[in-house]
Amino acid sequence: MKRLPNFVQLKEVGPRDGLQNEKKWISTADKIAWINMLSESGVKEIEFTSFVNPKMIPALSDAREVGKQIKREPGVLYSALVPNMKGLEFALDAGIDAASVFMSASETHNQKNINKTIDATYPVLDKVIREAKQAGKLVTGYVSTVFDCPYEGKINPDQVLRVCENLFASGVDDLSLGDTIGTAVPTQVEQLLEVLMKHYPKEKLILHFHDTRGMAIANIMTAMHYGINRFDSTVGGLGGCPYAPGAAGNVATNDVLYLLHGLGIETGIEEKKIQDAGLFIQSKLGKILPSRSLAYFANAQ
Amino acid sequence: MKRLPNFVQLKEVGPRDGLQNEKKWISTADKIAWINMLSESGVKEIEFTSFVNPKMIPALSDAREVGKQIKREPGVLYSALVPNMKGLEFALDAGIDAASVFMSASETHNQKNINKTIDATYPVLDKVIREAKQAGKLVTGYVSTVFDCPYEGKINPDQVLRVCENLFASGVDDLSLGDTIGTAVPTQVEQLLEVLMKHYPKEKLILHFHDTRGMAIANIMTAMHYGINRFDSTVGGLGGCPYAPGAAGNVATNDVLYLLHGLGIETGIEEKKIQDAGLFIQSKLGKILPSRSLAYFANAQ
Repeated sequence: MKRLPNFVQLKEVGPRDGLQNEKKWISTADKIAWINMLSESGVKEIEFTSFVNPKMIPALSDAREVGKQIKREPGVLYSALVPNMKGLEFALDAGIDAASVFMSASETHNQKNINKTIDATYPVLDKVIREAKQAGKLVTGYVSTVFDCPYEGKINPDQVLRVCENLFASGVDDLSLGDTIGTAVPTQVEQLLEVLMKHYPKEKLILHFHDTRGMAIANIMTAMHYGINRFDSTVGGLGGCPYAPGAAGNVATNDVLYLLHGLGIETGIEEKKIQDAGLFIQSKLGKILPSRSLAYFANAQ
Repeated sequence: MKRLPNFVQLKEVGPRDGLQNEKKWISTADKIAWINMLSESGVKEIEFTSFVNPKMIPALSDAREVGKQIKREPGVLYSALVPNMKGLEFALDAGIDAASVFMSASETHNQKNINKTIDATYPVLDKVIREAKQAGKLVTGYVSTVFDCPYEGKINPDQVLRVCENLFASGVDDLSLGDTIGTAVPTQVEQLLEVLMKHYPKEKLILHFHDTRGMAIANIMTAMHYGINRFDSTVGGLGGCPYAPGAAGNVATNDVLYLLHGLGIETGIEEKKIQDAGLFIQSKLGKILPSRSLAYFANAQ
């Protein structure tokens, strides 16, 4: 086996990717209290909301209030999802440290999600990226459906590479590669990284797994064997479909921490504080979240 | 990465390890119907019950009726858990093809579970193993807590090796190494296999993971990179603690099949039939089982 990294940096995307599809409204005060808990866990980056049109994502319609009222922990980077110039304006007003722009590697998924072709998306994002950089912010590019698309099936790594090239050309600092529908198996991770790591240093690449089929932890292991040491995750494994009983969401921060700390890899994050943050949001949502480690912790209380 | 196996053999242990702790009684007729579904899935080995004292495992008190009434699919090996000579007598009467004996690698866990020291357990199992072999049956030895013990913590691979040596000396055909409390991470799997594979060919070693912390699929990937191609699993991920909401049990056959087939590894098993068997037992138990793939399948129906 190749050597594992000594340190892994997690980005907590629960307040954005985790909550965005929840039908149960979480009050602004509860969101703020929860994000403040996350800020104290030792995690170094939190995606705290989305500035997508609130008509599209009503669960996060209080994005600006949240941004203005959360306590800023020194050393923590606060980022938000930003779809366009209007979103960027609100995001800058709300005090983001970093903007996350997004598009799909799959033409059909991009059109269904953003209502534009891939080629028509680049100039929109280019403007947002340049403006955010000019405002002194970091910019991450999310690329969705890098392994499989619900409409097109398998996505060729060369297609992912083309999207990466365009986003790097526009000036993103790094890219987060999304297994949006949670279907990838470890060999797919290997195949994509074999292509992308010929072009980009590992520091520029983040992997973003959903756990829909229970493969995420194995995929993270595989990516780490390629040297990748940055991953996105959500407390409790938030992010499943709210209408689908038992459906998994993003890979759970709790489970990733169990893995990493068990392997002797440092994260700077206190597991207990993540478990407590998991119990908090689980009680606010009123349902059992998918994380195995959170369930174990909750039952041991 | 080392090469993965072309074929992996799964043993379905749901009817035994999956059901043994369930408080809800599953009728004998339902058990038989379910095991018959499993028999038709293409799985080559099913542990269909336990001949442990029914006072200890009331959920499986109908072991003999089940054994006598299930339909025997040609080419499928029907095994059962056998603790002692009395259990073996019943098991032979019920028509087992193979007996599974069991003990722990941890002294304290063995004493709590079997009420004997490890040294006092060997002669009891030795007699069962020899008698079962004389009756023309295969014998698998389960070794529990090969990674971590709830009482003793980390278990030294050399201690596991000593137990393996004794069981092989008594004549077991193969050994199933259990992550009984579901705490192992991939480096622990590597450390144990580095020791054991110096002594035994891979065909003799089966790995038996619980998914308590969500590590099982990653552990299976790791074991396959060592050439291991035999695993135990339960339909739906049955086997969690019945009083612990969301608690995971054994690694789910559904999720293992998703992984293996996604990697292009053959199993001879039809995923759809395993999903249907998962929905069947889930409806009988009246609760959502932990398998990610089963949840996905159930929600897509």
